[in-house]
Amino acid sequence: MPAPAIITLTSDFGLADPYVAAMKGVILSLNPNAVIVDVSHAVRPQRVEHAAFLLQVARPYFPASAIHVAVVDPGVGTERLALALQTPLGVFVGPDNGVLSPALPEEVRGAAGERGGRVPLPEGCAGVSLTDPRYHRQPVSDTFHGRDVFAPVAAHLSLGVALPELGEAVEDAFALRPFRAPRLPDGSLASRVVHVDAFGNLITDVRGEDLPPGEITVTISGRPTKGLRRSYAEGTGLAALVGSSGYLEVALPGGSAAAETGAGIGDPVAVRASR
Amino acid sequence: MPAPAIITLTSDFGLADPYVAAMKGVILSLNPNAVIVDVSHAVRPQRVEHAAFLLQVARPYFPASAIHVAVVDPGVGTERLALALQTPLGVFVGPDNGVLSPALPEEVRGAAGERGGRVPLPEGCAGVSLTDPRYHRQPVSDTFHGRDVFAPVAAHLSLGVALPELGEAVEDAFALRPFRAPRLPDGSLASRVVHVDAFGNLITDVRGEDLPPGEITVTISGRPTKGLRRSYAEGTGLAALVGSSGYLEVALPGGSAAAETGAGIGDPVAVRASR
Amino acid sequence: MPAPAIITLTSDFGLADPYVAAMKGVILSLNPNAVIVDVSHAVRPQRVEHAAFLLQVARPYFPASAIHVAVVDPGVGTERLALALQTPLGVFVGPDNGVLSPALPEEVRGAAGERGGRVPLPEGCAGVSLTDPRYHRQPVSDTFHGRDVFAPVAAHLSLGVALPELGEAVEDAFALRPFRAPRLPDGSLASRVVHVDAFGNLITDVRGEDLPPGEITVTISGRPTKGLRRSYAEGTGLAALVGSSGYLEVALPGGSAAAETGAGIGDPVAVRASR
Repeated sequence: MPAPAIITLTSDFGLADPYVAAMKGVILSLNPNAVIVDVSHAVRPQRVEHAAFLLQVARPYFPASAIHVAVVDPGVGTERLALALQTPLGVFVGPDNGVLSPALPEEVRGAAGERGGRVPLPEGCAGVSLTDPRYHRQPVSDTFHGRDVFAPVAAHLSLGVALPELGEAVEDAFALRPFRAPRLPDGSLASRVVHVDAFGNLITDVRGEDLPPGEITVTISGRPTKGLRRSYAEGTGLAALVGSSGYLEVALPGGSAAAETGAGIGDPVAVRASR
Repeated sequence: MPAPAIITLTSDFGLADPYVAAMKGVILSLNPNAVIVDVSHAVRPQRVEHAAFLLQVARPYFPASAIHVAVVDPGVGTERLALALQTPLGVFVGPDNGVLSPALPEEVRGAAGERGGRVPLPEGCAGVSLTDPRYHRQPVSDTFHGRDVFAPVAAHLSLGVALPELGEAVEDAFALRPFRAPRLPDGSLASRVVHVDAFGNLITDVRGEDLPPGEITVTISGRPTKGLRRSYAEGTGLAALVGSSGYLEVALPGGSAAAETGAGIGDPVAVRASR
Repeated sequence: MPAPAIITLTSDFGLADPYVAAMKGVILSLNPNAVIVDVSHAVRPQRVEHAAFLLQVARPYFPASAIHVAVVDPGVGTERLALALQTPLGVFVGPDNGVLSPALPEEVRGAAGERGGRVPLPEGCAGVSLTDPRYHRQPVSDTFHGRDVFAPVAAHLSLGVALPELGEAVEDAFALRPFRAPRLPDGSLASRVVHVDAFGNLITDVRGEDLPPGEITVTISGRPTKGLRRSYAEGTGLAALVGSSGYLEVALPGGSAAAETGAGIGDPVAVRASR
């Protein structure tokens, strides 16, 4: 017996409403053996980059055979494309608005503009525009492609339908820039908060491996933090550390760094090194 | 190998407490191959009609073989019956207080009074009162029939136990009226808000197909909205549209209609057409 | 085909962040047939005893073959051990800080000090310190052993790896005292609130079977409640009853006892009997 297919779901639907359940019902009606995992349904409403970050953080822990459905879709019902992308990292299904960026290699995403833009799909990645209605739930609504397009497409993929069956090949996709803070001429990083987790940790777009050499000072809401800690249990007061997802974060052991600093998603973070 | 049975759960238990997990443990102890899907556990506490609406919205996306367990049960420990209903739409398990209304055809529910009432089970529907203790978890508590009665009954049904085994046949069940706003003599609809979703969309009990002909004006909290939009992405300001569940809703693109209007569940909505 | 293995998860991670999904991805990458059940991810941040209570309440409804992973881990990255315990009640995996207390018999836990302490593992229970890196996800982070140690260990156990393979045998474990209020010389119980559920019910550490004989008075925030009710539907006003988990709780039918009294986790509750 082959291993059951894994389908992950990321959305801004919350878990209070029956929308996620409707998507699961559509998937299981087509493939009752699919294993469905919720990545998060607490994406900030219609914040595509927030969804992309959460999916990017979770993705490495799933096998490359997993199918990732991401539905943050402020443009639903307009002309934006619906895509499926097959890549070495997994299969990704969702609107063509950047939410599928975790599918694309960082060097390719680097070519997207500051606010994102179209990038060519690289070698080893294939994409289709989901135009074949045979793989959609009919009738397709103007308001909920998660249920009517993306969920059934993911289920069909999990049953072995080949990507080219689903629609017309595409050569490029909308991508967000990598979650990597730009380096300023003085060597510091112009970072920002990309996520606030349930502990109030402020997670930035600085990868641990991009930290400048020397003693680090992280400044957020005018509050500087010197040095890097190794774990949450160490020390007291605001602390900078490279968290489990590989990004620099600011934490408050035993408390909430978000509450302590008043900072939130999008707020600037300065990262400097002294030698 | 037959497809695994699908069991859905709807309750007002929330996901913070271990109550939903206890139900899942009971189900999986009996049928480890059951596939369990949460519809919502964020039903407003003890609001039977809210649970019925959420289940009704999710139900069409599940196969008719699915077993739907709904536990909003303010009368637990009293004389209210515990029911299982087999219908062309699925199998439904829960207390006899109206929460199982989505099992019943709308024309039958139309006979329930304004606040709900007993209706005869129609042709093609069978019901039993869950009186056979062999299918319950012993001892049955006075406070948690979800765990002790409804979960094990659903698991036994998923294993192939026939409905009549579970207890005594019943001829009628408590039903809520259909979620369909009454039409006033002037042709307008006296609607109300039945759900506020995570986006702050105000969902009413007006079915799209019941909208009067002509240009629609939807008034909520004294705020009139003219015309119907096709999707959330269109236009700005308060917007009326028929949402993905088939009900008229009032939305605020990029914001929360609930916050904007101050309206909530139960609040009146006037729907008028001008020709 | 053997029944699929059940793995439960209890944490303070919340469901908004991708941390729980990362754990599930790790588990399913190793054992795609595992059935994963969330007990609760809404443990109060870093409150070990809250997690232990929630797991203890859910545990009896799972088969003894289930594997329970509990990750409330303020000491992650320090010298605290990581454990797996095999007991007649199930298999338990998590940090050695008391969160695994539901694995241990109450009489053994009684030997832990007032704030918890090390107790010897009794007959019939085996434990290992999770020191064998072959069963961990590499590299192991300093901040997220749930993903890098406990999830893969649980997956390996679910695949049949024997406990002794996972590391070095341990003779004792950190345990919390049983959730049982101490009896004062006058026969009353010095209880406290151990959990506030989604209905606002205040759940205490008094087991129903430990209630003193006679008419009970439960006093919380200076508000005495006389007598015990049988169900939530009975009567009005603050009510004491033995809830479905077997613990004494204070409820407010149709409302929230927590809001009504202002009481919360840790607050004292006096339980007296008059004859």
